[in-house]
Amino acid sequence: MTKIAPIALTIGEPGGVGPELALKAWLKRKEQNLAPFCVLSPITILTRAAEQLGQDIQIKVVSDISETSRIFDDALPVLALDAGDSPPVCGVASAATADIVIESITKAVKLCEAGNASAVVTNPIQKSALYAAGFRHPGHTEFLAELAGPGTVPVMMLANAKLRVVPLTIHIALTEVPKQLTPELIMEQCQITAAALQRDFGVEHPRLALAGLNPHAGEDGTMGTEEQTIMMPAINALRAKGLNVIGPMPADTMFHDEARENYDVALCPYHDQALIPVKTLDFHGGVNVTLGLPFIRTSPDHGTALNIAGKGIARPDSLIAALKMAAEMATKRLATGA
Amino acid sequence: MTKIAPIALTIGEPGGVGPELALKAWLKRKEQNLAPFCVLSPITILTRAAEQLGQDIQIKVVSDISETSRIFDDALPVLALDAGDSPPVCGVASAATADIVIESITKAVKLCEAGNASAVVTNPIQKSALYAAGFRHPGHTEFLAELAGPGTVPVMMLANAKLRVVPLTIHIALTEVPKQLTPELIMEQCQITAAALQRDFGVEHPRLALAGLNPHAGEDGTMGTEEQTIMMPAINALRAKGLNVIGPMPADTMFHDEARENYDVALCPYHDQALIPVKTLDFHGGVNVTLGLPFIRTSPDHGTALNIAGKGIARPDSLIAALKMAAEMATKRLATGA
Repeated sequence: MTKIAPIALTIGEPGGVGPELALKAWLKRKEQNLAPFCVLSPITILTRAAEQLGQDIQIKVVSDISETSRIFDDALPVLALDAGDSPPVCGVASAATADIVIESITKAVKLCEAGNASAVVTNPIQKSALYAAGFRHPGHTEFLAELAGPGTVPVMMLANAKLRVVPLTIHIALTEVPKQLTPELIMEQCQITAAALQRDFGVEHPRLALAGLNPHAGEDGTMGTEEQTIMMPAINALRAKGLNVIGPMPADTMFHDEARENYDVALCPYHDQALIPVKTLDFHGGVNVTLGLPFIRTSPDHGTALNIAGKGIARPDSLIAALKMAAEMATKRLATGA
Repeated sequence: MTKIAPIALTIGEPGGVGPELALKAWLKRKEQNLAPFCVLSPITILTRAAEQLGQDIQIKVVSDISETSRIFDDALPVLALDAGDSPPVCGVASAATADIVIESITKAVKLCEAGNASAVVTNPIQKSALYAAGFRHPGHTEFLAELAGPGTVPVMMLANAKLRVVPLTIHIALTEVPKQLTPELIMEQCQITAAALQRDFGVEHPRLALAGLNPHAGEDGTMGTEEQTIMMPAINALRAKGLNVIGPMPADTMFHDEARENYDVALCPYHDQALIPVKTLDFHGGVNVTLGLPFIRTSPDHGTALNIAGKGIARPDSLIAALKMAAEMATKRLATGA
């Protein structure tokens, strides 16, 4: 069986938990049966994190990511980036290390585009520190989409073993949600999601469940009309294209054990509607997957956790889940030639 | 030990699952160790439901609710209401039986007010059928509040073994939520909730967690400002009154197993934010409790389920949970003389 190329793991915010999590994930490589990954980082950041962990961890610089698989059992492979002049301080996100953060991401994407990495897994970044250094993208995902080229529409999916959700709108005020919800938005995200489930998740005929915007999905228009004026036209148009979409469904009754058996992914008009159920069902094992990119990208479902960085207590569950999901997606693409 | 007075159980919509659930709950009286309850219903509705169930159920008319406890082990006690001229049809909610629905509720409240019943447990009603018969209240809860007298502010709490939630706004369109969320509303509902947890749930020092309106609770005003302009002033005023309130909290990270240990009740600005987590965690065992009434009122956390009425498949889990919670609350009041 052909093996997937190594996974490129970015270092994320050097002052956050990324370095520690990369080491902890590698320590669990056998227990968790992880596919080989290579960290894109200045070597000093990782050696210092290993010292702080008080663990004797073999860290080995590779000159080419293709060496990853050969050494992965015995050492954590690192594609070394320049460390710059300002060593990061644990618990502090600094503009001084922004170049490292950005170079780690751009190199990972290039490795994927060249076919030398099978997926990009990203550690969390601190947007404020990047903005202070001149970063001009709304966020991590948008930056990746720009690197992927014009016309790329990224779709955020949160997934764990129990549930997959796509928030149709994300980091906007609740008052903005009804204004930004359009038939076009719903259709685009549903189509990208369905295609990704087929291509990368082995779901041959994806069943999409669309949550209503209003309580009880508006109850026939008595509590809001967006279900009738915005959502049903989108659903009908999607069905005409052959997609299997159910909804608009009352959001409160669609996430319990039995209800989840009726669909493969839930798409929700806004952030909390999607993220409450997925994080309530499994807080530590959630993975953030970006659909719609030409390459595979997953990420742990948490932030830089500056408050616990360097203390040795950060849990690598979500990063491990992200590494595993990326490997599964890459294996699927390799098997189908997608 | 003094025993609580019997619980008054209303029949709810006669064409719905209420009659069947009342019988099924009684059948489980020993297994579930239920406190004695008496159904307020025309006898024919219950005898017919028993026939449909195909079970030999003893149903006994009592002339006074005080007879309930004596016969409860051997027969389902019924305070008989007039059956009217139109027998209900399973699966059909009819204006013709509206008088029965309303009389069952009003009698139950009177029995409580007279001290002859310890709590009102209500089976689900179908508002549309009652409206067609001239009912003028927005819903079940508002009707009960009116029966309780002027100045009564009912607060809806959903509770199961894992979580208690209070939606600060309920059955309104999402666009209306930010407009209806005021410091006064938050303060009133928090105070009623805290008092009820102390009085009826044995929580001496209630810890209230308030969910932010916006994603990530607005993230310092970058995604909506209601947390700063509306919620924080209410929280500060409540703290000045000695209440233990935390928040505004990011709603997506406050409902997982560890997070729930930090509070006794979560109050959420809108319906889905509150009901998604509680129904996701335990769909069948949820109870709807109305706080702020002078009497105890609980209810199953589902509707009339007309589509399965009379088929024998309705699950009594939620009604049983409602009966148990009412009994626990009444026991608490009796013990403390509250």
